[in-house]
Amino acid sequence: MAMRIASKSAGTVGEEAQGRAKRADFTDVRANNLGFVLRQVRAEGRCSRADLAAKTGLNKATVSSLVAELIERRVLRESGSVIGNIGRPAVLLSVDTGYYASLGVEVNVDYMTLVAVDLAGNRLLSWRRAHDGAGSTSGRSVSALAGLAKRAVDKMDAEGRQILGLAVAVPGMIDNAGVVQRAPMLGWEEFDLTGRLRQAMRDPKYAVTADNDANLGAVAEQRFGSWAGVSNMIYLTGEIGLGAGLIVDGELRRGATGFAGEIGNLLIDVDGRVGRVEDMAGISAVLKALSESDDIAGAEVEAEVEDVVTRARAEEPRVLEALDRIGRSLGAGIALAVDLLNPEAVVLGGHYHALSPWIGPAAERELAARTHASGAGGTEIVVSTLGHEAPALGAATGILNDIDAGKMPTPLGS
Amino acid sequence: MAMRIASKSAGTVGEEAQGRAKRADFTDVRANNLGFVLRQVRAEGRCSRADLAAKTGLNKATVSSLVAELIERRVLRESGSVIGNIGRPAVLLSVDTGYYASLGVEVNVDYMTLVAVDLAGNRLLSWRRAHDGAGSTSGRSVSALAGLAKRAVDKMDAEGRQILGLAVAVPGMIDNAGVVQRAPMLGWEEFDLTGRLRQAMRDPKYAVTADNDANLGAVAEQRFGSWAGVSNMIYLTGEIGLGAGLIVDGELRRGATGFAGEIGNLLIDVDGRVGRVEDMAGISAVLKALSESDDIAGAEVEAEVEDVVTRARAEEPRVLEALDRIGRSLGAGIALAVDLLNPEAVVLGGHYHALSPWIGPAAERELAARTHASGAGGTEIVVSTLGHEAPALGAATGILNDIDAGKMPTPLGS
Repeated sequence: MAMRIASKSAGTVGEEAQGRAKRADFTDVRANNLGFVLRQVRAEGRCSRADLAAKTGLNKATVSSLVAELIERRVLRESGSVIGNIGRPAVLLSVDTGYYASLGVEVNVDYMTLVAVDLAGNRLLSWRRAHDGAGSTSGRSVSALAGLAKRAVDKMDAEGRQILGLAVAVPGMIDNAGVVQRAPMLGWEEFDLTGRLRQAMRDPKYAVTADNDANLGAVAEQRFGSWAGVSNMIYLTGEIGLGAGLIVDGELRRGATGFAGEIGNLLIDVDGRVGRVEDMAGISAVLKALSESDDIAGAEVEAEVEDVVTRARAEEPRVLEALDRIGRSLGAGIALAVDLLNPEAVVLGGHYHALSPWIGPAAERELAARTHASGAGGTEIVVSTLGHEAPALGAATGILNDIDAGKMPTPLGS
Repeated sequence: MAMRIASKSAGTVGEEAQGRAKRADFTDVRANNLGFVLRQVRAEGRCSRADLAAKTGLNKATVSSLVAELIERRVLRESGSVIGNIGRPAVLLSVDTGYYASLGVEVNVDYMTLVAVDLAGNRLLSWRRAHDGAGSTSGRSVSALAGLAKRAVDKMDAEGRQILGLAVAVPGMIDNAGVVQRAPMLGWEEFDLTGRLRQAMRDPKYAVTADNDANLGAVAEQRFGSWAGVSNMIYLTGEIGLGAGLIVDGELRRGATGFAGEIGNLLIDVDGRVGRVEDMAGISAVLKALSESDDIAGAEVEAEVEDVVTRARAEEPRVLEALDRIGRSLGAGIALAVDLLNPEAVVLGGHYHALSPWIGPAAERELAARTHASGAGGTEIVVSTLGHEAPALGAATGILNDIDAGKMPTPLGS
């Protein structure tokens, strides 16, 4: 038996004692239980109050009171009924998908994405716009973001939906106070993005927050991706910049000051060439090796990648060779991160999706050949099924996660 | 405000509900509460049953019952009394340091270490032996380990102490089944160390376990080091091999299959030379650059490091120059891991302790210059105060952590 270190113990509390100690702080227990019931309904799809009592171990009176509050808060709704064993119809509950909307946007070098989801995570909006983030001033990027967000807010308003919050995904380092410390691809440094965005949106009632794009991509993958629920995962953004979001033992890890996941500086040695993994295996490497234009403005990245895909499909030797080298470079970089973190899966996001038929197999071979552990310690390289939408979707999802944790919204006018 | 992702919510349970659902499984709640009371006594040093009731929120009858069991199990003992406010003397409780012993051993390239601690973590034994782990067969290493452990067991027996367990720290990759998958420095591959050791010790009643030396060093640092209690830490072993133990958000992280923390392959580029951080900044690099003998057997590493220290104190230019380069190399490697994990502290263990006056400042400068985040994202490089003892101490500590988590020992004859 391997020794498992129970260091967790230092921070945990016996359940009975925890229940008691916290019972004094009633609102805390109540919030936890509201979140707990909501997550049960999510897991079941539709269920009765009696089902909830059985599943949660809470008594029926407590369940009824919690459900009443969740309905009042428009988080749950009654949706039909079934005839139970004892012949009385039981009212079924489901997540109320009709009232709230959570907004996530991403600003990147070559595009902006906006995703709106309802409380069940269904997409209400999924917009993508070309945006020259690299060539724009921070002010123009904020205006463009605010414009996109306002259009979404108006549309949600028209549908009678209340906005839960607006979260922004940024390819850069965001500190724990929400300030973008550095987003080199966008030319931002110590930039109070959320403050400026609030201003541009005339101080909305809902929260405006920001986080790193890779972190949020990982959050989206953990909830919606094909590897959803996996405990240890590295999500890699496949944009001009290369970033990582780390899920370790079931949770996103942001590090001590919020700056974890900067993977771009890892040095790799492939075919006798030594360089940073971002430079040798990022999407910039693809364009540098294969683009026919000398100077690619930010907004043209997607078209250029599409062109590369077309040429790869036509089996143009130079393209196949370059993609193989880039795939091997990516695998070499991934191997270093896998040696450190030993995840179940490395998920390739963004433009890697389109390029995966060519870079994926090469990356996998290189990973297996380079890790300390044999067979890469079990790590698989997989392609995101969420594509470019992941960071914005993750931004919107983070707001849902807060609600699931018991931070319940209050409907307008109540 | 930065958005903090409450992804934890998916796995947690409202306290009230948790209390109820688990109350069915009485032994579980009881075990948790036993651990909870023990940890409270640890934190307080000495305290009364009334103190415990106040601190834990458990009622007095429950506390009395838990304390009675802990005393019966020889985990707590009564030690004196104080006169309280109401005039009646209150009996004080403390951790029973007189009965149990937990054993940790480390086998490495050039030495073996054995540490025995009592239930409060006080050192009962701290032995270090030269051992040519690199030059020995696995069978001879097992015999030497068993011999060392048996002597400790006999000594504890003679003192009337019961052994809680024997845990082995190994510079290699140990899978979740406890098999050493690879320990290249020792020449082990797929080696059932714990099985062989049990055999050599004639199937003792206590558990025999194994884990990676860096993981266990991190566990020791988290409990006893000068950075004890820090939430995000990378512990680096400073032996011939270079390994990392990762504390992330308060807990040791072993990865999906137990192989996290392999840092040696990280590639660095210093003074125009490119190489693996283990080769350029590990203790092997020090010896390669500065040892006067051509071929260093495992057991001579310590003497060689001492010689380097003597020459550095004498300010021998070649030595100072080499140590500066090795320190910068170490900082370059640390910067890559810090970019990924953004810890509060990187703790240098093993031989780095003796060399730290020369390599520490160079490593810090290089770290600050190379990380993505300015000011290294707040990360400090510090030197272990536990030195070579850390992995064996961590091995012994892991057993205490299990007890703190509620896995209570049963005294012999009861």
